[in-house]
Order: sequence, then structure tokens, then C-alpha cells
Amino acid sequence: MVRAKIWILKKHFEGFPKHSDFELKEVELPALKDGEVLLETVFLSLDPYMRPYSRIHLKEGDTMLGSQVAKVLESKCPTFPVGSFALARAGWTTHFISTSKELFPMLPNWPEKLPRSLALGAIGMPGLTAYFGLLEICQLKPGDTVLINAAAGAVGSVAGQIAKIKGCKVVGCAGSDKKVAFLKEIGYDEAFNYKTVGSLEEALKKASPDGYDCYFDNVGGEFSTVALGQMKKFGRIAVCGAISLYNDTVPQTGPYMQLMMILKELRMEGFVVQRWADRREEGLTALLKWVAEGKIKCQEHITQGFENMPAAFMGMLKGENTGKAVLKV
Amino acid sequence: MVRAKIWILKKHFEGFPKHSDFELKEVELPALKDGEVLLETVFLSLDPYMRPYSRIHLKEGDTMLGSQVAKVLESKCPTFPVGSFALARAGWTTHFISTSKELFPMLPNWPEKLPRSLALGAIGMPGLTAYFGLLEICQLKPGDTVLINAAAGAVGSVAGQIAKIKGCKVVGCAGSDKKVAFLKEIGYDEAFNYKTVGSLEEALKKASPDGYDCYFDNVGGEFSTVALGQMKKFGRIAVCGAISLYNDTVPQTGPYMQLMMILKELRMEGFVVQRWADRREEGLTALLKWVAEGKIKCQEHITQGFENMPAAFMGMLKGENTGKAVLKV
Repeated sequence: MVRAKIWILKKHFEGFPKHSDFELKEVELPALKDGEVLLETVFLSLDPYMRPYSRIHLKEGDTMLGSQVAKVLESKCPTFPVGSFALARAGWTTHFISTSKELFPMLPNWPEKLPRSLALGAIGMPGLTAYFGLLEICQLKPGDTVLINAAAGAVGSVAGQIAKIKGCKVVGCAGSDKKVAFLKEIGYDEAFNYKTVGSLEEALKKASPDGYDCYFDNVGGEFSTVALGQMKKFGRIAVCGAISLYNDTVPQTGPYMQLMMILKELRMEGFVVQRWADRREEGLTALLKWVAEGKIKCQEHITQGFENMPAAFMGMLKGENTGKAVLKV
Repeated sequence: MVRAKIWILKKHFEGFPKHSDFELKEVELPALKDGEVLLETVFLSLDPYMRPYSRIHLKEGDTMLGSQVAKVLESKCPTFPVGSFALARAGWTTHFISTSKELFPMLPNWPEKLPRSLALGAIGMPGLTAYFGLLEICQLKPGDTVLINAAAGAVGSVAGQIAKIKGCKVVGCAGSDKKVAFLKEIGYDEAFNYKTVGSLEEALKKASPDGYDCYFDNVGGEFSTVALGQMKKFGRIAVCGAISLYNDTVPQTGPYMQLMMILKELRMEGFVVQRWADRREEGLTALLKWVAEGKIKCQEHITQGFENMPAAFMGMLKGENTGKAVLKV
């Protein structure tokens, strides 16, 4: 018998998450049935979407949601033999039982030298989010000037590098000087710390006096109001995330955007990467190739120890990570 | 020598336009040169866009902007012989001199029984706005449920009828019971008076419990915030106008929309009909055919007398018109 440690959502978050919203439990897992696999979580993903989605998909007492890279400990399913690795969406748990329907295999040609945690980052959901958001929603073209915020995060850092691969000028904003240095290292043409820059409007103007063709938005709220004012005519805005709004108890307000959208004929679209589930392999193959060639540099912010998962989650929401936040169990 | 009466923008509008913002003048027109045409305005168009565009395109002392149906009084240009009619963008003037480059001919197969003023409405710019906004921006499909506000206006009344022609369910909102009756008369499936309905959210839910695929927005602001909450997943929003915001002295604010746009994967796009200038003939031909067949019913709100142009403009901004507002000189 295997005992799994799990993090429960004890209380729905009100405002910024607190330690007391979580509870660590242990449960005994049943014996395997035919077609089932017992897995051990190796890496847990930490992503901003967990904050709004917990409210939508969980009730109090449920295991916190999330995905992981896991190793097969025991198998009654030929697709996932013992010792193989898989991707799962089993939530915050050290061990779990699954069927092949709920698991994704790792890409078959995964290079030895690449950490498997990248399957949660640049060569995983965040990478695909950047890929489809830029190519499909922004309809990125060579020569476009692209604005990306939360640019040093899991999605933003990949998005900026894809935009460079595609022949664009890329401007990024992040919340610390260390992150800004990282952005310049990975090829952003212009980058600045929005917390210390003074006027965001002036900084955006300075970074691209002609304005922006595309805006890959991970932040929303006030930042977006200012950014919209700097879009070129027919600008395209991919609304990927809204981390500035996730912890609101009362919805934040700002100027209505319709008039600017008409005058500049802007297109703004919200999206969830799941939309291109049928093109997952295309996206991952492209991302793996770019990472293997060194065209996409990956940085990870790794927290050790399952017991630190709530702290790592809160740290990620505060922007403590540069690059992809993961937890090594 | 011909003397033209013109309405001048004496002072840029601050908040809602006032009589004192306008000034009536008379100017003497020069003799015609080769290639020029002297025209007399027959119908002047009254459109909401004039309010925001006056700020952008005019300086104080300029002739107020707008378009007209005009009759050729004298011609040194073979394309526009004496007695023929043309469309122009000469602003609020009784007479003007123009060249063929600045004039559009009327559609050649214009039926005798149709008033020429419709070239400023259902078979003109507002009709084209409805046509391209629905077909190109909303990507209208048969079976879609479509929400339209300011639905009894020049654009909304045509948009609703096009959506019906295309096999959609159409829900319209307007600001008086008389307008609501008109909407039902022209084929709207559901219509209500947003001013007296109590909860807009409940009214939208009641009119379409499954939500809306498309939202053709002429109003913006608070209405749009509520409407977004009633969109279906992958809903498409054409931002055509924002009449609720045009007279702001301080920008109105409301809840940021990014989170809802992500969760529902909404697409919102602002547009100006000029984008499809190269498809003008296609659009006008379709509209003329539908009007001639009785599939699009046209209603006009006609004010008499050039001296009443400012009053007619302010009345249109207040929503006094059912159907297209025009002035007969």
C-alpha cells in the first residue's frame, strides 16, 4: 500500500492566498486495477492560472489543481511501463493512480541533457501558450513590434524568444532589475522594470516610438489601459493572463476601452491554450527543436520539497520567480 | 455667384454639444474651374461618429464634418453632369464645389421609388457598417444568437435585419417603447427597452438563456460590461460605436474585462467601415437588393431645414430618432 501526501484547498482564496487556505493530508491509495498506473510526482508545476481556476473548478476540501511530471512505479497498462515518465493533471499530490486516458506521454525524442521539468515549462503548457497565442491570436508577422508583460515569467520568456525567432522587435516589461537583465540576456530588444520606470506610457513610447503591432498580455488591468494607448492601428492583443486581477476581492475598474478600440481598430482576444489541443504535438515539436538548438533559453525557478508547495505558489503569484516556477518533490 | 450657408464648429464640444458650439455663416463660392462641379446639398446625414471625429479631424472655425446627397447645379466634369446626384463628404453646407475624386456616384440601378436619402442610411455608410461588422468582424453564422444595442438606430436597425436574413436569432435593445415596437415590426426576435427593464443582466438572460454568440456593440461602457457576462464561449464582439462614452468630459470607468475575455475566450474588435472601401460596391449592391425585395425595411427620421442642423444633431445624440436621422435642406 502506498500513502500519498496531498495538498487540499481548505478554504477558497479571498484576496491573496494564505497558508491557512491549504491543508496537508495523507491518503492511502487502493490496489491497482487493470488498465491503471501508479505514479510518483517528480516535478509539480506552479502556474498563475491555478489562482482563478481553483475558484471555478474546485470545492473546499478538493485536492489543489495542477499538473506534474511523474514516474511510473507500478503498471497494469502497457502504454506506461514501470520506470517511464508521464505528464498528468493530478493536482498537488506525491502519488496517484491514473489511466492512460488521463496521462500524456513525454515527447519520444526528449534529449538526455534536458531536464524533464521543461515538459511543464518551455516545452509544455506555458510554451504552447506562447506559441499559439503569438501565432494564432496575435497573427505575428516578421517585422512586427511586440509588447510582452510579465515577460520574465514562464510564458513571457518563451513568447519573447519565439517573437525573435519569427523576426520581430520585442519589448518586455518585468517587475525587478534582475528580471530585466534576464530579458536582455534572452534577446529582448528593449526591456524595463515597470515598478521603477516612472511613467509606463513614456517608457512604452521610448521603447517603440512608432507603437506596437502586437501585445501579448499576461497582466491585464491598468497596464493594459496604458498599453492600448500605444498600439498601432489594427493592433492585435492576445489576452493570455490577467495576474494583476486574480487576487481582487472587489473588481478593479479602469477607463472603458471601446472608444480606443474603434479609433485604432484594435482586435483583442482572450484565449486558453487548450483550444489547440489537437495541435499539441506540432507545438511541442517546434518548441523542443528551438530549445535543443539553443534558440530558446530556459530558466527555471525550482523549489525543493512537497511541503513547500503553498509557499512556492504564493511566491510565484508575487513574481518571485524568473523563468518557470516548478517544485521538485 | 452662389452663396453657401455653412455650419461652423465654433468651439470644440465639451461634454454634450450646445447650440453655442455652432455658428451659421455664409460664404461666396468662386467660379468653377475645369474638372469641378457645383453641387447643392439635398440631404445631410446625422451620425454619431461626428461627435468623436469632430475632435480628431477639425479645428475650431472649420465646417462641421458630415456627408450628403447632393445635386449637380453646374458642371465642368463629364462624370457628373448637371441634374445628376452624387454622394459627398463636404460637411454641413448647402452648396459646395467638388471634383470627381471627392464624389461618389449614386448606385446606377437606384429604383425610382426609393428616396435618395437612403444612400446615407440603409444603402449607404450605416448599412455597410452593419454588413461588414456582422459578416467580417462577428463572422456571423446561421443559428447564431446576436445581440444588438442602439438597435433602432441607423446601423442597428439594418444589422438586425441582416442577421435575420442570415438565419440568426436577434435580440435588440433600445431606449424607448416606440423603438422597441419598431424592432419587433422589422423582425427582431426579442427586444426590450433598456431604460425601463430593471436589471439589464436579467433581461439579456431572459431573451437568450443560452447566451450570445455575437454582440454588435454601438453603445460601449456599462452596457458592454453586462453584455460580456452573457456571451457564450468563443463569443465575438464587434465594437462599432460607443455612444455612451462620446460626451464624457472625464472618461467613465468600469470593471476590467480581461479575466472574462480569457475565461470565455472572447474576441472583441473595433472597426471603421472605411476598412472595406474596396468592397463598397459589393456591400451596397447586396443592401439595395434586400431593400428592394422588402427584406430590409427602412425608417427615416427627417428634420426639415438647414438651420435646424445643430438641433437635429443633438437630438440624434440623445436618441430621438427611430431609424436613420437625416436632414432635408
